[in-house]
Amino acid sequence: MLSKAVRTSETMEPALAFPDQDRTTAEKLAELQKRIGKRPNIVWFLIDDMGWGDPGLYGGGEAVGAATPNMDRLAREGLMLTSTYSQPTCTPTRSAILTGRLPVRTGLTRPILAGDKITKNPWAEEASLPKLLGEVGYATVLCGKWHVGDVEGMRPHDVGFDEFYGFYPASQELSKSLDKRRYPDLVLNPERMQMFHDTGASEALIHGFKGGETTVAQKIESLDDIAEADHTLKEFSVAKIKELAKGGKPFFLEHAFMKVHADNFASREFEGKSASKYPYKDAVVEVDAYIGEMVKALDDAGVLDDTFIFITSDNGPQMDSWPDSGTTPFRGAKGSAWEGGVRVPGIAYWRGMISPGRQSDELFDLMDLFNTSLDLGGALDRIPTDRYIDGIDQTSFLLADGGHSMREKVYIWNEQNFMAMRMYEYKIMTKVVETKSQWLDIDMSTITDVGLAPWVFNLYIDPKEQYPVGHRMNAWLASLAAEMKAHAATFKKYPPKDIGLAQ
Amino acid sequence: MLSKAVRTSETMEPALAFPDQDRTTAEKLAELQKRIGKRPNIVWFLIDDMGWGDPGLYGGGEAVGAATPNMDRLAREGLMLTSTYSQPTCTPTRSAILTGRLPVRTGLTRPILAGDKITKNPWAEEASLPKLLGEVGYATVLCGKWHVGDVEGMRPHDVGFDEFYGFYPASQELSKSLDKRRYPDLVLNPERMQMFHDTGASEALIHGFKGGETTVAQKIESLDDIAEADHTLKEFSVAKIKELAKGGKPFFLEHAFMKVHADNFASREFEGKSASKYPYKDAVVEVDAYIGEMVKALDDAGVLDDTFIFITSDNGPQMDSWPDSGTTPFRGAKGSAWEGGVRVPGIAYWRGMISPGRQSDELFDLMDLFNTSLDLGGALDRIPTDRYIDGIDQTSFLLADGGHSMREKVYIWNEQNFMAMRMYEYKIMTKVVETKSQWLDIDMSTITDVGLAPWVFNLYIDPKEQYPVGHRMNAWLASLAAEMKAHAATFKKYPPKDIGLAQ
Repeated sequence: MLSKAVRTSETMEPALAFPDQDRTTAEKLAELQKRIGKRPNIVWFLIDDMGWGDPGLYGGGEAVGAATPNMDRLAREGLMLTSTYSQPTCTPTRSAILTGRLPVRTGLTRPILAGDKITKNPWAEEASLPKLLGEVGYATVLCGKWHVGDVEGMRPHDVGFDEFYGFYPASQELSKSLDKRRYPDLVLNPERMQMFHDTGASEALIHGFKGGETTVAQKIESLDDIAEADHTLKEFSVAKIKELAKGGKPFFLEHAFMKVHADNFASREFEGKSASKYPYKDAVVEVDAYIGEMVKALDDAGVLDDTFIFITSDNGPQMDSWPDSGTTPFRGAKGSAWEGGVRVPGIAYWRGMISPGRQSDELFDLMDLFNTSLDLGGALDRIPTDRYIDGIDQTSFLLADGGHSMREKVYIWNEQNFMAMRMYEYKIMTKVVETKSQWLDIDMSTITDVGLAPWVFNLYIDPKEQYPVGHRMNAWLASLAAEMKAHAATFKKYPPKDIGLAQ
Repeated sequence: MLSKAVRTSETMEPALAFPDQDRTTAEKLAELQKRIGKRPNIVWFLIDDMGWGDPGLYGGGEAVGAATPNMDRLAREGLMLTSTYSQPTCTPTRSAILTGRLPVRTGLTRPILAGDKITKNPWAEEASLPKLLGEVGYATVLCGKWHVGDVEGMRPHDVGFDEFYGFYPASQELSKSLDKRRYPDLVLNPERMQMFHDTGASEALIHGFKGGETTVAQKIESLDDIAEADHTLKEFSVAKIKELAKGGKPFFLEHAFMKVHADNFASREFEGKSASKYPYKDAVVEVDAYIGEMVKALDDAGVLDDTFIFITSDNGPQMDSWPDSGTTPFRGAKGSAWEGGVRVPGIAYWRGMISPGRQSDELFDLMDLFNTSLDLGGALDRIPTDRYIDGIDQTSFLLADGGHSMREKVYIWNEQNFMAMRMYEYKIMTKVVETKSQWLDIDMSTITDVGLAPWVFNLYIDPKEQYPVGHRMNAWLASLAAEMKAHAATFKKYPPKDIGLAQ
């Protein structure tokens, strides 16, 4: 048997069992709760489209012209994960981490774009993390990018967040109607501009509250407004942290940067601050600095020891915007099932609770943040049992000294296509993304079935997925394929949903 | 003007000037000398064929199945260089770091192979680092791989080292006559084996002393002997460190590992010790452990604070041996002028003298170790003035807090071909290596001239050298080309040498 994962429920992803580390972790958390008299805070820093190879400790930083001293420090003083997996694009990742469910299950299989007609509100049926945490007494805030629906019923403050301060779409959706140098065919053509506005694209910084109250905090009217957006968001989160820390409730803050999504526009403070001087690079430096400031705000407010922090990116770097784009040592980029599309930095930091200097290449799927956060919040029993949950509770992996991952496999989907599976250091692909142009991973690529046999890569000896090891793996090929089939079988009882985004 | 480097002598490579950091460094070194009553020790750890992407802090380590806790710690507690350049292959690098001169100047332009007829001993004219350091009172030892000539007059103990304990050729030259699984056409054919032995290939661990005394310490008779070679060498260096530390002289120890050169054979102690289990990966773990042991030996002997340590590799990973090979995030591999061939890890560690946590992407050429070591040894005035020296004294870059590199440009040669120049984050190529097979960088590639214009890459935005930025760089193209011409002009007065290795 290749697999050691145990299925404990028909609706839960099988997991590896490490009872010892679970026990010591539970004790550690119980002690903390006793000391602070409540559950811990949870803070996520979600960077948009940053590559695995961008932070310094991942081989980037100064070596690629954009130093990241804050992320490096937090990684050094916490747990640096080298095999963290996202979905290949934005909306899928952002919805998956809040539901613990694969995009194909919720229907949120690709980025929502201006003009999309969602035929069915997925949130009407999904139980979001902020909703469940709210039920057990958490204050919940999303600051920054949402990108999982901007119509009533799909807004952050409709689906569980107490408060939302941010933007519905990605940065590029805001800037493209303002950037005449890059999009002259849109911006300099009044008729097209009218057509664009008619799609109903959101062009504002929104402030919303549970219950429905929604105001425009700022209209976005210039590229400068976009350049300064992350500064504004950071200011909000710093103030909010101060406020939340004073309250009696534990809190969940998802700070979702607009940067470093293409197109990047350097802010006043950070223009030219990277060694490279390119806007993307300045944006990396900016985001890194703000992470430092927000962590400091937690410390200043006296709650840093009470707060679980996770730093990551929603997918691989977007290379279609090259030359202003990010870094991955891997094959492919945002939008693909290659490692370059789905392998992202993952840094877990918790002073006093996660021992400094830890590093692990064991598997972590960003969906695991759903279950893990519910465990930290004492709300595991609120996970719905009438649907399939793909996330795994990884609390003891992250918190125990020498903790092991409970995740044995990561399943990699591209929209409606089940592409690949990572298991141990192997990756097996039954469909492959083929780029048809040097760096147009999204704008010009195809998805094709494999030929005679699945493509199997050994990521330790071939991290760039260049040389399949099929014949070397013959002994295990059937076993790996069986694991993929077992995953596919979970869709029989719980079929994929179509909310109008399927192609 | 694009360049700020200053030419101070017709025979010395122009360098950037940072008088302040030079002054503070000189003061620091003078204080040390006053305290310990002699010049500092110099220890190099030279790993064979290890990739830039192999150590953990360079994005490898656990992420590629071979943890490197010792190198990571030394990099964290010292200066981690991300733009260190070697020559594309072994003999060229090994001779260049001991002479401060490009291989094309000494004639040592490619690996010496069994059967090569050297028509002229290059060492008859070259002034080696150990020779010059010996003249100012250093004890000098080479432990491990030499690979710069095994005939009388070219052996390490003929050219300046007091003592040599190691092997003349690369590991593969020793193992190929023993490895019937990989080389059946040689090993299982008695006639070919005889032809191989007739080349005069060295198949022994040699112990030699200045003056000529040379004994066979061990005949290499099995793959096990090769597997254990680095253990034997490490034991020698540990004992030697103890002995040298007790002596009154400062010492220069070059510890040149046989590993991780293909083919790798796991030692008894380290077989299966890497997460990947592949012999190359086990070899990385082994080498890392030995570095830890030797640094500890320095500490135990009470001389760690008196010793400058530099850890590097002689070139990029050898990919022709795939699947048992190393990692580089860059394009190309050993043997090529792409970054994958010549960009190597570079870690400078000196407790008490190099501040922990430093990192720099400024340029360092391994040839700079020649000048830098002579500066540390107080022997800068012994650098010959009748020939061109390509190395630059980088002492204050390495030692001063916030020190800048004095090197503005790195010139990249492949044997007799001047291929490329790195300057700032740009790399300009006038000839390019094109591989004609997926991973046969050495065994099947061609060197061709560029087409309409040089290929210019911006390594910050394109570390993989995939997308030339020629038209974006038009304003500087002539200036960059002029810098290349200035380099080529140094060969007019000091022409390249041919010692019988030119093709």
